[in-house]
Amino acid sequence: MSPVDNGNLLQKLLKKASSESLISFTAGFPANDMLPVEEIRKCYEKALKDHQILQYSTDSKGNRSLREEISKRLKHKHIIITSDNILVTTGSSQAIDLITRITAAKGDVVLVERPTYQEVLKSLHQQGIQAVGVQSDWEGMLPEDVEEKIRTFRPKFVYVNPTFGNPNGKVWSIERRKQLIQLCKAAGVLILEDDPYGDLRFQSMHIPSLYELDEASDHATVVYVSTFSKIIAPAVRVGYIAANPTILQSLVQLQHLSVIHSGTIDQQAISHYLQNYDLDKRNALLVKEYQSRLNEMEDELVVQLGNEVKWNKPTGGIYLWMEISPDIDSMQLLEDSLANGVSYFPGHFFYVDEPDVNGIRLNFTFTSKEKIRTGIRKLAQVYQEMKASV
Amino acid sequence: MSPVDNGNLLQKLLKKASSESLISFTAGFPANDMLPVEEIRKCYEKALKDHQILQYSTDSKGNRSLREEISKRLKHKHIIITSDNILVTTGSSQAIDLITRITAAKGDVVLVERPTYQEVLKSLHQQGIQAVGVQSDWEGMLPEDVEEKIRTFRPKFVYVNPTFGNPNGKVWSIERRKQLIQLCKAAGVLILEDDPYGDLRFQSMHIPSLYELDEASDHATVVYVSTFSKIIAPAVRVGYIAANPTILQSLVQLQHLSVIHSGTIDQQAISHYLQNYDLDKRNALLVKEYQSRLNEMEDELVVQLGNEVKWNKPTGGIYLWMEISPDIDSMQLLEDSLANGVSYFPGHFFYVDEPDVNGIRLNFTFTSKEKIRTGIRKLAQVYQEMKASV
Repeated sequence: MSPVDNGNLLQKLLKKASSESLISFTAGFPANDMLPVEEIRKCYEKALKDHQILQYSTDSKGNRSLREEISKRLKHKHIIITSDNILVTTGSSQAIDLITRITAAKGDVVLVERPTYQEVLKSLHQQGIQAVGVQSDWEGMLPEDVEEKIRTFRPKFVYVNPTFGNPNGKVWSIERRKQLIQLCKAAGVLILEDDPYGDLRFQSMHIPSLYELDEASDHATVVYVSTFSKIIAPAVRVGYIAANPTILQSLVQLQHLSVIHSGTIDQQAISHYLQNYDLDKRNALLVKEYQSRLNEMEDELVVQLGNEVKWNKPTGGIYLWMEISPDIDSMQLLEDSLANGVSYFPGHFFYVDEPDVNGIRLNFTFTSKEKIRTGIRKLAQVYQEMKASV
Repeated sequence: MSPVDNGNLLQKLLKKASSESLISFTAGFPANDMLPVEEIRKCYEKALKDHQILQYSTDSKGNRSLREEISKRLKHKHIIITSDNILVTTGSSQAIDLITRITAAKGDVVLVERPTYQEVLKSLHQQGIQAVGVQSDWEGMLPEDVEEKIRTFRPKFVYVNPTFGNPNGKVWSIERRKQLIQLCKAAGVLILEDDPYGDLRFQSMHIPSLYELDEASDHATVVYVSTFSKIIAPAVRVGYIAANPTILQSLVQLQHLSVIHSGTIDQQAISHYLQNYDLDKRNALLVKEYQSRLNEMEDELVVQLGNEVKWNKPTGGIYLWMEISPDIDSMQLLEDSLANGVSYFPGHFFYVDEPDVNGIRLNFTFTSKEKIRTGIRKLAQVYQEMKASV
């Protein structure tokens, strides 16, 4: 089944369930009750005090004040970059789309992790670009396989999500980060580092981004993508790209031709947010809440399925990755779960080829603690019943 | 010179001029002092009262309430379409980009008017898609040339801007509209009808859109694109596509993969605007103001250059198209004009091939009446001087 057919089946399954009563572990949504509604209101109010804000912007890179705030923020992440080397996008999805479009075309190859973000697989497929999976373990891509796949396929870029990665929450080791950069640099292959979850870390240790590690060579190998969707609010659709001037120039041109510029009112509101509120403080609250939701999920999983399944121990991000019995059809399990009011994301969608493990992805940030307990109980019940009957 | 090099030169020229003191006839901006600042503020306030508005939308087509408002609005334009057949986009640029991406790829051909919207030419060029110009007069494309170009090039679609078209304000005759539809329908070629200016008509007569005329065949041939950029505010970046279900389905998929969805706060604000304010009344005020700015421009042109140049008599839209002497280099004229504090858009950018006429495009909506007079005087002076020296 192609990713698209597969996706349509998933859509169909999910549509069957009424969203009101459903306990959803499916989508990567932030918690509704943690959205900074009041603050955002004030930021829009402030943004709209400037008459000129309603006119076209003549800067396709994005509002300068926002780019300056992003530049400051990146400094905290040890990423030294001027606002001139930042392009504001309509969420990180558009960032990934723009980078794909300037580097690859129909028939080209892109290397991806196994497993990886399913929407990127769908997007590449839609554009006739071939995604090739690289063998990975819990430290990151295996260097020898990166090397071989580069040699064999001459890919246009390597897509990675190395910090609390989607779908399995993996954090690449520093060694593997360096090895990937080295191999790509030697072969002249670009790396697209997608980092939507990097701020949501449960411990305060610094994990260097690939972009940071590529500083020595003027960021010629790594393009960095991030977003405010997970840490402020998804609806504002403000993401961004950090890239060296040559790469950025092409991206800005394409941005101008495809949307002229991203929404400037949204941009200005986020700029005010960063100027007037303490995002690190908010992050700390978010992380605390998310960690306790995850604890709730893991505690209940231990009780219900402790002897049946295994899962990663996420140290950040928004997903728990659970490996279920190879005898269970995860689409059938989803259908039965939905009938019982629980949903999740079947793992094979995250593989471009045959999965190594029978995984399912559970989001732990959207659903309240209470509902998480109930949801896991229901899911476990369906799972036990299905297992008993195979 | 390729469109891209040409564009870079133009950018360079325009950057030389300080935007503060410049009298700009270049860009297609609405009047700053006509932007509905207070109303828009209230609409954002209202939109942000809904907590849920900050979360991801699960509807890539766009907010349902906005699509319903658009559907009602289109009814006034004799376009009968349900909200299900509308996709909300990040301005009409993204609408054009999405349609291009689902229909054409590198190496394909698209037919365009001569002259046509320069950003579309740049975008097609950027994507390696060949734009081929169709011979046109003041009634629209010549049917015999449409037929020949379709036969010769088997284009993926025909891009037209038939109502107060960019750059020359042309309004296609109904006969030519029908002929284009008939020819495209027979050949199975799609028409992209771009209609950003249709509401800005100085007389109240109804001009049927191609989309309306294609109703008999279930809109299988025409895809309709419009935007609120010119009639409410550009910064909100809310455009839309009306298309039949089959075409729309592919567009929605690509929209989801490229941005997930357009900014929902912007969308909801526009939805509130359409629900709470009388856009037709606003339009009437806009049209009145723009017509008087145009009158100012034409009156001064008559005085200054009446015997030297000719121009169209716009009956709507935002552009006046002026034909200057073939002996004048319009890029040199621009450089000299900029040195005198006036800017415009040289006409050859709007042609994919050798222009028939030496035209320049003057926007009459952005600049105040007083400055329009001064600007035309300065431009005329530079023109006379240059003409005297050739």
